[in-house]
This record gives sequence, C-alpha cells and structure tokens, in this order.
Amino acid sequence: MPDFSEPVIVLVRPQLGENIGAVARAMGNFGLSSLRLVAPRDGWPNEKAVASASGADFILDRVEIFATTREALHDAHVVYATTARGRDQTKPVLTPLEAMPKIAAMRQTGQRAALLFGPERTGLENDDVSLADALLAIPVDPKFSSLNISQAAVVLFYQWFLALHGDVPPFNETALKPASRAELYAFFDYFEGELGRVNFFRPPHKSEVMKRNMRNILHRLELNDQDLKTLFGAVRALVRGPVPMSGPLDCKQPPLQEG
Amino acid sequence: MPDFSEPVIVLVRPQLGENIGAVARAMGNFGLSSLRLVAPRDGWPNEKAVASASGADFILDRVEIFATTREALHDAHVVYATTARGRDQTKPVLTPLEAMPKIAAMRQTGQRAALLFGPERTGLENDDVSLADALLAIPVDPKFSSLNISQAAVVLFYQWFLALHGDVPPFNETALKPASRAELYAFFDYFEGELGRVNFFRPPHKSEVMKRNMRNILHRLELNDQDLKTLFGAVRALVRGPVPMSGPLDCKQPPLQEG
Repeated sequence: MPDFSEPVIVLVRPQLGENIGAVARAMGNFGLSSLRLVAPRDGWPNEKAVASASGADFILDRVEIFATTREALHDAHVVYATTARGRDQTKPVLTPLEAMPKIAAMRQTGQRAALLFGPERTGLENDDVSLADALLAIPVDPKFSSLNISQAAVVLFYQWFLALHGDVPPFNETALKPASRAELYAFFDYFEGELGRVNFFRPPHKSEVMKRNMRNILHRLELNDQDLKTLFGAVRALVRGPVPMSGPLDCKQPPLQEG
Repeated sequence: MPDFSEPVIVLVRPQLGENIGAVARAMGNFGLSSLRLVAPRDGWPNEKAVASASGADFILDRVEIFATTREALHDAHVVYATTARGRDQTKPVLTPLEAMPKIAAMRQTGQRAALLFGPERTGLENDDVSLADALLAIPVDPKFSSLNISQAAVVLFYQWFLALHGDVPPFNETALKPASRAELYAFFDYFEGELGRVNFFRPPHKSEVMKRNMRNILHRLELNDQDLKTLFGAVRALVRGPVPMSGPLDCKQPPLQEG
C-alpha cells in the first residue's frame, strides 16, 4: 500500500552498496521510508548497504526492486530528476528549496512525488531524465560540483524535512529562569563593594564609568539564576582567600539590597 | 594567513579517514577550504581520506593538524559546536538555517567562525562543547536522529552556501523562445480543422466545448517554438499517413491564419 504522504526515493542503477545504505540512513534521519532501486549493479540484498545504513534496516527491509525506471515510477504523479548538469532538455530546473514545499503541498491532493537519482559515475541517462517533470539541482560551487549521491540525497531530504516540519531545533538546552533584576543588582552591589574595598576603581574620577562598564559586561551575559549563584560564589571565594579543600562551597546569594 | 571570509571546519578526534575525505569533498562542493583536525585517530596523512575526497585534494593538502581543540580554535572569534543531543549546558541552540546567515554576516566585521564536529562514535565531549558559543543542531526525525558526520557536515555547508550566494540553481536548461500567439492559433486552427474533417467533434452541440478543452490542454504545455514545430509535424504525419522511411520530415509551420 503506497504511502502518498512522502516522496518515494528511486535510485537508478546504483553501483555501490555503501551509497545505497548511506541514502537509506539519511532517509531515516529525515523521516522518509520508501526506497526503490532500479537494477542495482550488485543485486539485492547487499551486505555493504546494510553496514552503511547504520541501523536504518527498517528502510532496507522494505526496499522495492524494479527492472526499469518506468516501472519504478508507475504510481508516481510527479517526478523530479536530480542532476548536477544541464541536459539540453526543456524542463524547469528547481532547487531543493523551491521543490520541497511543492512536494509537501502535494500531500493535500494525494499526489505522490518521486525523486530520481542516477548511477554514481555517470548520473541519470537522458532517457531517464526525459521521464521527469522537472530537474532538481543543488546550488554548488561550479568549480567542484560533483556531489556524492548520498550527499546530494541528504540535502534534498533535509530540505524536505524543513518543508514539512519547519526549521525547529531537535532539542533545546534546559531553559533556566533568567536572574531577576533584584538578584542581579544585589550582585552588582556586592561585586562593586568588594572591588571598591581593594581600590580597583581608580583614579576616583573614573570610578563611575568603570562601574557602568562592568555592569554592561555582566548584563551581556544574560545570566540565569544558577549562573548568578556561580559567579557570586566565585567572587566571594576570591574575597575570602584560601579555605580547606574539604569545606563546603558557599554559593548562597548575597542578601538582597533593593531600592 | 587565515582566510576570514569563510568558517573553518574543525574535526575533533575523527576516527575514519573515509569520513574526513567525505567532509573535504563536501567542503569543496560548497566553496569551503579550511579544514583542521584535532588528534585524528589514524594519524595524518590518511590514504582512505584521499580516496573518499574524490578530488578534493586541494583541501586535504592544506589540512592543519592540532593536538587540542583549544589550539585548533586559537584564531576563531565565534565557535559553533555541532551536536545531535542536548548537553545540559546553558547555550543557545541554533539550526543551520539560523546560524549560517549570522556567520555570513561576520565576514563584514572580519570575524572568523569555527564549526566543531566530534568523533563519529560519541560526538563532541562536553569539555569541547564548553568551548563553543552556541550549539548547532540539525532538525531531524527524533526516532532516528544519528547523522553520519559527513552527512551532518553537508547540511551545514549547503546552508552556508545558500546564506552566501542565495538559492540559485547551478545551471538552467536552454531557455527557448515561447511560441508566439499567432503561431499557436495557427496550430489550433490546423489541428481543429483536421479533427473536424475526421468528425472527432461529436455530437455537434459539444464541439465548441471540446475545442475549448483541447486549447486548454495545449496552453498548459507552455509550448516553445521548437515544441510547436514538433507537434505540428506529428499531427501532419498522422493526417498524411505512411510515407517512405527515406523521405524528409516535414516540420514546416502551417500557414499563418491570423484574425
């Protein structure tokens, strides 16, 4: 039962099992699952593909094999041929960033897209390219434009994932509560007081500017609760001087001095 | 002499030469050239790296080797650590799409960015991560989030290239002149005339609708000069019936019938 919600990936006459596996792995990374091979050079299954898939067996186990490109495309509605060079065929040339939102939009009308990739050494033959609605070409440095097949694939799959899910980081670091202004000002007062005690602010007529600069540095840190406790503890430790290694760390907040 | 116009790529304790080469190749594809290795497991140079670089020798020849991550970052101003998982370190997490325009903008102020990649098996250690200003994380399917190092690299490099050069296809197919409306109408008239002659438009009260549908199909083709000649020749050949194989193809335009 074909899944119309994602493009089917068609590798035409792939040569190296390593590349088939790398494509499968990249598919798994970006939520794709439907892989088809047209006349793979070394037959199927392929142990090297399994090794380089690094656990994307759920994709390799479902690979479909076809004798011809036409057969592999039988249930596709729209076909994009990836190519690194022009073909003198009058077809639109789309970048991944242009094509993937179109493909994502096809989900709503139940259209199935297929992405065609050619053999490693030569790329797609012109006959295969003529089966496609458009060419798909990745912006690259023209001086060194030959992408590895699995590298080209990963760019397309990444862009597909973004078209579908938006550009959202896969995780976020624990968001700690920013330090309150009162806590921050208490630290300023303590820090400036101790620096004043050791005559850091000199000459005296520069002391206000120096304090302002110091506050600006500290504001730039966007300190959170924990950061402020850590900094306070560090300053307090310097003020107090050496203590026995076995003693507890004193990271208590300084007393609040509001207003 | 460091080149401040592009980020430097730093692979920390890379394990497989194949991956170093694949990263170098991807750098070449997207116009990057400055590669540094921190304590590569198998030493340097590495024959497997050369093989998988597929011609990116101009990058491998200039690789710089460092003993520690700190040393490799000595001339960087901003450091991004790529990681597939959170580290419980309070750092901003940026996607490639967010980070690369920032890095591209640094060119104007002469700031050098570094992109840190960890060893294949484990990723960056937390000590290396703590040297970075921000984490760089690729949006992936959380169910299968482990990207190959060179696959992660290619996503970043691709996004860097787009930030720098915009999303422009690397080539375009020959743009042929669209057929003029007069040429198109002449073809409509000829085609409809011949179809009328063989009583294609029946029943008669539907003939106008059928002609409109046919014109709509033909408009959708966005025919160019050459397409129109080809289609005209094909229709004319069907109308005339079999001719000797040796005879010339008649792809002349039908006479224009304007107005």
